[in-house]
Amino acid sequence: MTSYGSIAAFEAALSDLRAPDWVAEAAARARQAQLTKPAGSLGRLEDVAIFLAGWQRRERPRMDRARAAVFAGNHGVTVHGVSAFPTGVTAQMVANFRAGGAAINALSGAAGLDLKVVALDLDRPTADFSAVAAMTAAECLHALNAGAAVVEEGLDLLVLGEMGIGNSTSAAAICARSFGSAAETWVGPGTGVDDAGISRKIDVIDRAIARHASAPRSAFETLRLVGGREIAAIAGAVLRARQLSVPVLLDGFICCSAIAPLAVERPTITAHCLAGHCSAEPGHARLLEQLDLAPLLSLGMRLGEGSGAAVAAAVVRAALAAHDQMATFAQAAVSGST
Amino acid sequence: MTSYGSIAAFEAALSDLRAPDWVAEAAARARQAQLTKPAGSLGRLEDVAIFLAGWQRRERPRMDRARAAVFAGNHGVTVHGVSAFPTGVTAQMVANFRAGGAAINALSGAAGLDLKVVALDLDRPTADFSAVAAMTAAECLHALNAGAAVVEEGLDLLVLGEMGIGNSTSAAAICARSFGSAAETWVGPGTGVDDAGISRKIDVIDRAIARHASAPRSAFETLRLVGGREIAAIAGAVLRARQLSVPVLLDGFICCSAIAPLAVERPTITAHCLAGHCSAEPGHARLLEQLDLAPLLSLGMRLGEGSGAAVAAAVVRAALAAHDQMATFAQAAVSGST
Repeated sequence: MTSYGSIAAFEAALSDLRAPDWVAEAAARARQAQLTKPAGSLGRLEDVAIFLAGWQRRERPRMDRARAAVFAGNHGVTVHGVSAFPTGVTAQMVANFRAGGAAINALSGAAGLDLKVVALDLDRPTADFSAVAAMTAAECLHALNAGAAVVEEGLDLLVLGEMGIGNSTSAAAICARSFGSAAETWVGPGTGVDDAGISRKIDVIDRAIARHASAPRSAFETLRLVGGREIAAIAGAVLRARQLSVPVLLDGFICCSAIAPLAVERPTITAHCLAGHCSAEPGHARLLEQLDLAPLLSLGMRLGEGSGAAVAAAVVRAALAAHDQMATFAQAAVSGST
Repeated sequence: MTSYGSIAAFEAALSDLRAPDWVAEAAARARQAQLTKPAGSLGRLEDVAIFLAGWQRRERPRMDRARAAVFAGNHGVTVHGVSAFPTGVTAQMVANFRAGGAAINALSGAAGLDLKVVALDLDRPTADFSAVAAMTAAECLHALNAGAAVVEEGLDLLVLGEMGIGNSTSAAAICARSFGSAAETWVGPGTGVDDAGISRKIDVIDRAIARHASAPRSAFETLRLVGGREIAAIAGAVLRARQLSVPVLLDGFICCSAIAPLAVERPTITAHCLAGHCSAEPGHARLLEQLDLAPLLSLGMRLGEGSGAAVAAAVVRAALAAHDQMATFAQAAVSGST
């Protein structure tokens, strides 16, 4: 299924963003006020339940059909020594996902998520974006559509994650180009490079930004020029989820970087998204601030794969359990505050 | 079953604190280093799994027998108008717990915890501690033992919570007396009193501290003089859990206040405890700092009942799933870092 048949179709979808169901949201808010607890005392659990009510378009949101989708891609920019791991690890980890041995398998199982793994042309890495465009327009569109394809009408929650040796360099380049800020603002150790590796990442990004300076600053072009297949797929999934009113739970720095160029064009693209956690990768806190997203968790995680978001999904499940199962003051014959 | 037949027995237990199994802890740490992820990239999930390995005394800790225990008590100090809710709400909420309609029912269900509700002499509130001792020695011992009684050998995790109209005033008094700091350091809105209510709380605590100034500063005496039955029960449960090597997940300000007087005597009492969350009640962050505990969650919750800890239990479950189910680099044939 092709959601975006052309760049124009992608751009049209991005320029016509759906709103939540305000009636369902208001009904959920009213319900929270009647549950047997001091008003507001469940904190963000209340916000999460109300948020999901709006996007699921029902007063009592569910988490019966919750999906984690993990996209994998390879990156030509790894020729510059920007990662602590060899590129072969991307395919090895995809095999690990399929065999059930990775963190995301355990964590999505614990949170009751079905897991979809989408490997995107691992044998054809993107081009080295410090020299040329990472992808052709057709390749970028294909990746966007591969992301959109994991989203089905009626999903209760979509958890997004990625795997791709070298992709924290691509993510930092996307942020630098989207926000017009210096490469060092967005570069960190990723899976664990040392200071020399960080310098190489900054250098590669500086060259990429200069190389593509005269190209259009549209969301599509930024994803195409310095992005990666798995990152473009996440952008496509987020946009498609919005079209289908499916709430999204975002993971770490690389996952969130996929939305940065979309948010520059349309700041409300994040309205159906929750930030699952704040990663230990230093650029992530800055990026969440730029996207105006407050993370649910801050556990020092920095693995990717959707792992932080999958842990946050357990918090979402708790929020919905309280929202759905608690008695009201009237039902329980409990006195209100004086 | 009486764990502490006398004050001396309680004090003996507090002065002889068990250590974790360092061998199991080291084995869990070594396992984490072999799992298919960059070293340390699961952040606090790794710490939690290693912590539980030490206290459960096995390399692969479980969460099959996890219990939430919620203690309820009433407080004579409510005659001074220190709560936003009438005292009858304590018994009404206990009925709500038993009927399954409270937040802790939904949240312990979501986290897979069995829930034990212990109502402690609700028809006999503690005495007004601004004038006299809150409890007799026999009453305080009885409460400590009621707490200890919920702890069974072989429990995988114990989540502790409380309910008691007026008990944030008792908790603040315990902290002020334990740490020798001013009442206003520890007083907040609780379930939602206004500024006048906060002033009344401070005034009541100031008078209580002065009234009991010449009494011994032992843990037992602080719990007895300004504590409450549910708070003493939590102290008894934490100590008994240590004797049985059961790891504990603490809830908010009132729950943590129960350990403050114990920690002043024996700082290592917190070694088998995790802080589930940081509450919105302002004293809690300060108290966690004093107890040297870093909360797992910070979701703006301030309900009590063990609700924040129950949400954190889902994070603990995720940590153990990753620790137990992930493949090692060797098993998955994934290359390590270069």
